[in-house]
Amino acid sequence: HIKWIFVQSLLQSSIAFAGSAAVLVKYYAPYAFHTGIPEIKAILDGYVLDSFLSPWTLLIKALGLALAVASGLSLGKEGPLVHVSCCLALLLSKMFKQIHRNEARKRKMLAAAAVAGVSVAFGSPLGGVLFGLEELDTFAKGTDVMWRGFVTSVIAAMALQYIDPFGLGKLVLFQVQITDETTVWRAFELIPWLILSVLGGLLGSLLIRLNARAAVYRRSSALNSWPTLEVVCVSAITAVVCYLVVFLRVQSSELVANLFMECDPVRGDYHGLCNTTATWANVFLLILTAGTKLVLTAWTFGMMIPAGIFLPTIAIGACLGRAVGLITQGLQRAYPQAWIFLSCPPEPNARCVSPGFYAVIGASAMLGGVTRMTVSLVVILFELTGALSHVLPIMISVMVSKWVGDYFGKEGIYSIWIAMR
Amino acid sequence: HIKWIFVQSLLQSSIAFAGSAAVLVKYYAPYAFHTGIPEIKAILDGYVLDSFLSPWTLLIKALGLALAVASGLSLGKEGPLVHVSCCLALLLSKMFKQIHRNEARKRKMLAAAAVAGVSVAFGSPLGGVLFGLEELDTFAKGTDVMWRGFVTSVIAAMALQYIDPFGLGKLVLFQVQITDETTVWRAFELIPWLILSVLGGLLGSLLIRLNARAAVYRRSSALNSWPTLEVVCVSAITAVVCYLVVFLRVQSSELVANLFMECDPVRGDYHGLCNTTATWANVFLLILTAGTKLVLTAWTFGMMIPAGIFLPTIAIGACLGRAVGLITQGLQRAYPQAWIFLSCPPEPNARCVSPGFYAVIGASAMLGGVTRMTVSLVVILFELTGALSHVLPIMISVMVSKWVGDYFGKEGIYSIWIAMR
Repeated sequence: HIKWIFVQSLLQSSIAFAGSAAVLVKYYAPYAFHTGIPEIKAILDGYVLDSFLSPWTLLIKALGLALAVASGLSLGKEGPLVHVSCCLALLLSKMFKQIHRNEARKRKMLAAAAVAGVSVAFGSPLGGVLFGLEELDTFAKGTDVMWRGFVTSVIAAMALQYIDPFGLGKLVLFQVQITDETTVWRAFELIPWLILSVLGGLLGSLLIRLNARAAVYRRSSALNSWPTLEVVCVSAITAVVCYLVVFLRVQSSELVANLFMECDPVRGDYHGLCNTTATWANVFLLILTAGTKLVLTAWTFGMMIPAGIFLPTIAIGACLGRAVGLITQGLQRAYPQAWIFLSCPPEPNARCVSPGFYAVIGASAMLGGVTRMTVSLVVILFELTGALSHVLPIMISVMVSKWVGDYFGKEGIYSIWIAMR
Repeated sequence: HIKWIFVQSLLQSSIAFAGSAAVLVKYYAPYAFHTGIPEIKAILDGYVLDSFLSPWTLLIKALGLALAVASGLSLGKEGPLVHVSCCLALLLSKMFKQIHRNEARKRKMLAAAAVAGVSVAFGSPLGGVLFGLEELDTFAKGTDVMWRGFVTSVIAAMALQYIDPFGLGKLVLFQVQITDETTVWRAFELIPWLILSVLGGLLGSLLIRLNARAAVYRRSSALNSWPTLEVVCVSAITAVVCYLVVFLRVQSSELVANLFMECDPVRGDYHGLCNTTATWANVFLLILTAGTKLVLTAWTFGMMIPAGIFLPTIAIGACLGRAVGLITQGLQRAYPQAWIFLSCPPEPNARCVSPGFYAVIGASAMLGGVTRMTVSLVVILFELTGALSHVLPIMISVMVSKWVGDYFGKEGIYSIWIAMR
């Protein structure tokens, strides 16, 4: 069967990519594994970890990241790109003695490099500066660091716009269509959004705990001696599972872009998401996707390969959000006369609930639960989606999910990893 | 003549409003004059100025602000609203002894109140938080202050959305229409934008200097003993001048909204701005408006009435920006075949240059020059205009205008006023 051959070649290439990434990391640059953001935070706090930013790490991280992303494992490329940008900055700084000899100056420069990395990785120049403000303590120590970060971020974004790697002519990755219909949100929608925010906080904490458990288990068990084998096995399992769950067959970024989009007869339908007769099947499939992705991500983040947590988290949140959006839309269509839905336009075909925006809310709640960032998260989500008229719901969801998450443990995933190392 | 009667009644009401505002401020609460932001910054830095936030100041500032805005003087309401919000917070805090007895706690609470004030005054919840981060030093001292500011800001914006004072159902004040045509900007447009940014930096410094000179002159001359007379005279002059310069006849906020809008045959034309045969007359008129407004604002900001600097600055910048936009558009239409304009669509009727967005750039450059804020400015401008796909040009203009402004003097207008008092 052609189908069988396809699955086999999928498996083989997936294993080959993941395996070679793991071999590269294990034998040439062990510091190139994981996202790198916790370590960068530690370095900027004053720890000296020079080999963490060595040229070898730079090379292996860049190569291994490309292989790891290609293997289809449940990981993102954003965090590792920030690490790559810091390695590059340290390499360049060796040309200037007055920076290289002065630890304080070096740290300032690395902070600016991290900002530029976020700016380019997310296409979010403003989000980069705010990430610096919120997550990197060096920033708070002087306004000159912030101002330098601002300039670095603008220049990095200009370079990105000029090179235009995706050929779109814009920085925004997941453009949300906010048409005239969707610019208005109704008060009753706050209820499903609050539910989503609480869910995001809960599942974010769950993801952090599962991930920490997996890391502890990995270290104390036989897996510790066989990191490459582990990566190969997980990539094989991921390939099979992702083939079975239809939404996981595409790349995470493509999935998220599709989930963020509203249904529009002109643009065509993505995997029957807009099929109104299959609402409940879609809801089930979306929840299944979110659950699968959660388990896979909790295990993958921490294996011997470069791996970011941002994109998988967005994907989990977007699936949940779209599911809640579909449920709300289904209820509204089934009971249009219920008092709670009276603020909707009375025409039977007018759209009242926009499930695409629910996916954005889900993503922001999930990110809030996992990273516990606030302001920079909101700004990055703005710049990623362009959902400006919906600032307030996004801010509320980040706020609530951080509250819920903080109840189950004060620390975000990056702080947990700093503590574990 | 009816026209003459109209001008006369305009003058009379203008003088009556401004005069009564000045009398109120002079005899009941001298601290209620000016914007209040420099003093709030000083208080948060540790100065104790309890009468600055007294209930009398609250009452007179709120009343006087309404009168001052109604008088048509060249001033904004945003800064004074932040002061009002801080007065209110101090009044409420008297109910809670553990806050009122502890200076550090009081300062934290005032910082949150200032953030809520910005959030409501500009309809910009995120901008409020960033204003706190960038301008108020208390914020940098602990992440808990930032997080509290975030929560305060969200709640304030929710209240605003619920009350909906303008009946628009949204927070954004000046919505910029970014249609499919205008979402793309061309590289050659960076040249007029850079010119605008440099202009903004220069004129911002000029405004600061003129304003400081006016304040010094006022204190050392006979005007010092006759503040009410001064306010009455300036309001009479303002009324006459604004009647003569056609763009100044409407309120500043309406003017700015019109300047930010693109020409669209459906929506109709504002004072012939879209009349393509009168481009040069419009450019002249816009520059005249900007110059007049600059002089009036430099004198008004510092008189014995509540007065903000934000809105007049935006208006000056928007006039200049629109003028530069019209010039660029005129050049492009006159020489569509020049190599610099080759990236424009070849159809003769397609729009290539969007003068409305040039007005946004002008406003951001002017604000950068006057306040020397960076990140919070960009965010407030976003939230005011919704111009998300144009982050990068806005960031560049703020950056360049701050550079140019810093060359002529390091301090923003708020720091100058702290130094003067």
